Amino acid sequence: MTDEKYRKLESLQNEISDITGAIAVLGWDQQTYMPQGGSEDRGDQLSTLARILHLKITSDEIGKLLEDLLPYASQLDPDSDEARLIKVTRREYSKRTRVSPDWVEEFARVTTVAETAWEQARETSDFSIFRPFLETIVRLERDYAQFFAPFEHVYDPLLDNYEPGLKTADVKEIFDVLRPQQVELIRKIMEKPQVDDSFLHMPYPEKEQWDFGVSILTDMDFDWKRGRQDKSIHPFTTSFGLGDVRITTRVETDQSIVSLFSSMHEGGHALYEQGISPKLRRTMLATGASMAVHESQSRMWENLVGHSEAFWRHYYPRLQQTFSSQLGNVDWFTFYKGVNKVEPSLIRVASDEATYNLHIMLRLQLEIAMMEGSLEVKDLPEAWNAGMKEYLGLIPPNDASGVLQDIHWSGGSIGYFPTYALGNLISVQLWEQINKDIPDLEQQIGAGKLGGLLDWLRKNIHQYGAKFEPQELIRRVTGSRIDPKPYVRYLQEKFGQIYKIS
Amino acid sequence: MTDEKYRKLESLQNEISDITGAIAVLGWDQQTYMPQGGSEDRGDQLSTLARILHLKITSDEIGKLLEDLLPYASQLDPDSDEARLIKVTRREYSKRTRVSPDWVEEFARVTTVAETAWEQARETSDFSIFRPFLETIVRLERDYAQFFAPFEHVYDPLLDNYEPGLKTADVKEIFDVLRPQQVELIRKIMEKPQVDDSFLHMPYPEKEQWDFGVSILTDMDFDWKRGRQDKSIHPFTTSFGLGDVRITTRVETDQSIVSLFSSMHEGGHALYEQGISPKLRRTMLATGASMAVHESQSRMWENLVGHSEAFWRHYYPRLQQTFSSQLGNVDWFTFYKGVNKVEPSLIRVASDEATYNLHIMLRLQLEIAMMEGSLEVKDLPEAWNAGMKEYLGLIPPNDASGVLQDIHWSGGSIGYFPTYALGNLISVQLWEQINKDIPDLEQQIGAGKLGGLLDWLRKNIHQYGAKFEPQELIRRVTGSRIDPKPYVRYLQEKFGQIYKIS
Repeated sequence: MTDEKYRKLESLQNEISDITGAIAVLGWDQQTYMPQGGSEDRGDQLSTLARILHLKITSDEIGKLLEDLLPYASQLDPDSDEARLIKVTRREYSKRTRVSPDWVEEFARVTTVAETAWEQARETSDFSIFRPFLETIVRLERDYAQFFAPFEHVYDPLLDNYEPGLKTADVKEIFDVLRPQQVELIRKIMEKPQVDDSFLHMPYPEKEQWDFGVSILTDMDFDWKRGRQDKSIHPFTTSFGLGDVRITTRVETDQSIVSLFSSMHEGGHALYEQGISPKLRRTMLATGASMAVHESQSRMWENLVGHSEAFWRHYYPRLQQTFSSQLGNVDWFTFYKGVNKVEPSLIRVASDEATYNLHIMLRLQLEIAMMEGSLEVKDLPEAWNAGMKEYLGLIPPNDASGVLQDIHWSGGSIGYFPTYALGNLISVQLWEQINKDIPDLEQQIGAGKLGGLLDWLRKNIHQYGAKFEPQELIRRVTGSRIDPKPYVRYLQEKFGQIYKIS
Repeated sequence: MTDEKYRKLESLQNEISDITGAIAVLGWDQQTYMPQGGSEDRGDQLSTLARILHLKITSDEIGKLLEDLLPYASQLDPDSDEARLIKVTRREYSKRTRVSPDWVEEFARVTTVAETAWEQARETSDFSIFRPFLETIVRLERDYAQFFAPFEHVYDPLLDNYEPGLKTADVKEIFDVLRPQQVELIRKIMEKPQVDDSFLHMPYPEKEQWDFGVSILTDMDFDWKRGRQDKSIHPFTTSFGLGDVRITTRVETDQSIVSLFSSMHEGGHALYEQGISPKLRRTMLATGASMAVHESQSRMWENLVGHSEAFWRHYYPRLQQTFSSQLGNVDWFTFYKGVNKVEPSLIRVASDEATYNLHIMLRLQLEIAMMEGSLEVKDLPEAWNAGMKEYLGLIPPNDASGVLQDIHWSGGSIGYFPTYALGNLISVQLWEQINKDIPDLEQQIGAGKLGGLLDWLRKNIHQYGAKFEPQELIRRVTGSRIDPKPYVRYLQEKFGQIYKIS
């Protein structure tokens, strides 16, 4: 009887997973191949599917099943797939059912139009176009938090949507350690002679960039039978199920080889999704543990591998040969230093490893202030610019390259930004553990052998999908909570060497 | 109150249309870009969405609304969009609710596996692999018909799914007129010296074929802002809504310029979908009137335009310039005759205008016999070969190029084939009318001006979508029922000239 109920839960999970996958396909097409005229229909299709999905997840049927399965669940090994699936379903059900349908509908409506308003605002660098929409979004997010009262902090319920279990106080504590260290490091770097990266700012033909990216992805063991790469304006990874995980890359032929790093970043996300155990197929567990854990994978491949000395020792000769007119006179160490150039900049997505987290800290501070009510949306551009001055010593010349640069808020994604920085931290925590477990990791990478790393990741991270909450997963693997110190050590060592800081 | 109920019906229609559109997106991706590993997930997603769609269309809510709307509908202008939407919704609701859920589920299950079995069977030319699946499908289709008993003919309920309102007796009557005339024409053609088409059987580079196809589609006024063209093994047209209508083409570089005609064929389908009135957006009426009417549009552009003297008088110089090494020594009339070469062949999709319908007649005869129970599936290959001998004078050397050539039966699409031949007939019926209304049509085409034709089609056919049943639409436009005589006249005149038959 209980077994039958569990089967029923599984079959509802399958349906939920199928609809989620369908939504992902529609989203992928929207960003890659959809003609302009398709956007109105696509918006309708996506909102209809989202509504159907919401009704499925919050159905009385699931609520009743979860209740009936309580005694069954209590007898299971708490680490079994079954117990975890019940737990995660319960978490989703209980979160979603707390929120009123009216709220869901208003939020969906405003975020749909807000994105268009944000695009217009950014194009014309006119915050006033976006302001009323962001005001509504902030009001709605504050209302959202109230559905979860009482809470330690009003930001907690938002953060929990991206990092289940993590609290605002945890993030603040982590960032409080990290910030002065990164600021100090950047100060020291800025005192040193700047490295040369002029060779990166010239035309690199598209086809060669694309092919090189594909060959790296192939070396990373990206499974082309279960995925593909396409082009889009903003690179992303999406999964339609364990057998179809797609990435996109942005090829800028004018002035960079950015697509290589973009491919490695998205490839890192994709390896995670492709590595999830088939036993979790068609359930809510067949995804990453959290946004930060996901980002730890992408940043590991992009930075710890893709921006490392070892990696370029191996790959540089081929790169140089491919782009001989651009790189013919550039030696590999100059190239390595060039791709790792540190320079405070206005734009988060274009920033280097040493400054990136500061962009995030600014956003977190502003999000928290807006949620607490101490910062009004109308004062946001000013607060942004003041923060940029304080954190990075720069003042944006206009809002397009300031407060309007990121799409996230227009989609109602408040609480998302911190996961980027946390992902960086986690990547290095894992990296230290991997280096203990694979003492010759650097030599392997230096020989172009990336399989040892992937095996470790599959065994320790990927296979589990969303079975474990992020902090639990990290503790299982590293024995520690999220810790900024390894990241600080990593930055100091790497950039100390590049910039000759003693 | 009633108005409110009608709004409710519209909003359910919108939901149904959104899900239908989503299914189309998933299907398109499956045929164009999906990696091999995605097929299992995709199958699950499609079947879940199909189930949700079925439940929506057959919901008690719709049933109740339709009943409540009866007095309202009776007061409406019977040709109004509102009255027609209610009518079509009722037709779909009443057809779908007659069929048992068990049948729907078994049919979905068997057709999913049958397609794979058919692929295997065709690859190995071994009918026995496919036979048990087809036996189940035929049994299920016979069961399906019983849901609609009493009927004039057991084939009627199947035909009705593709040609609403048309009866088996109508089709037989039409084909009985057509068949001896086509057979006689082919006989006369075969007595004459064959035309030369050797220049078509050589390599034509892909990019040039693609670009030429795109330029013709552009001249046809295919709206690239509301559509796109991709490649697939089997060309098709699909609509995700009025703002996003996509076609695919098959490029065979080895031995033909087949992609040009494929693009025009699918372009004809697409112009129909793109030309539907925006007032019908997001309803069941935002599609073609029937498969045959749809095919009349594709065949009109492919054949009546794309295989005409006038068309090539205009386009041939450019084609010859593009493919100068293949066509440099071929004059335009030789080319025109070459693309219109008549030759009985084994494969339906490769056959010419004069023989095509005979392939359809054979299939119809076999389908009817299987449905009536006078032909068993085990005897189908033999019956196929006997029919090919009788109709076209050829015996397939194996089942792959015989009974296994078409995918339709594996998907359970019995009743579909006749619409191809009916589409040919309707295309010429419309063509005669168009030539009356636009006396200089041929000159316009000969000058590369295709807009007059498209305007006529939009005004008389496209805008109405599925508002009118196919026979009603044809009668409105031509004043006649589906009639084989114009098609016979057309074939006799065209091929009489090409083959010099007096």
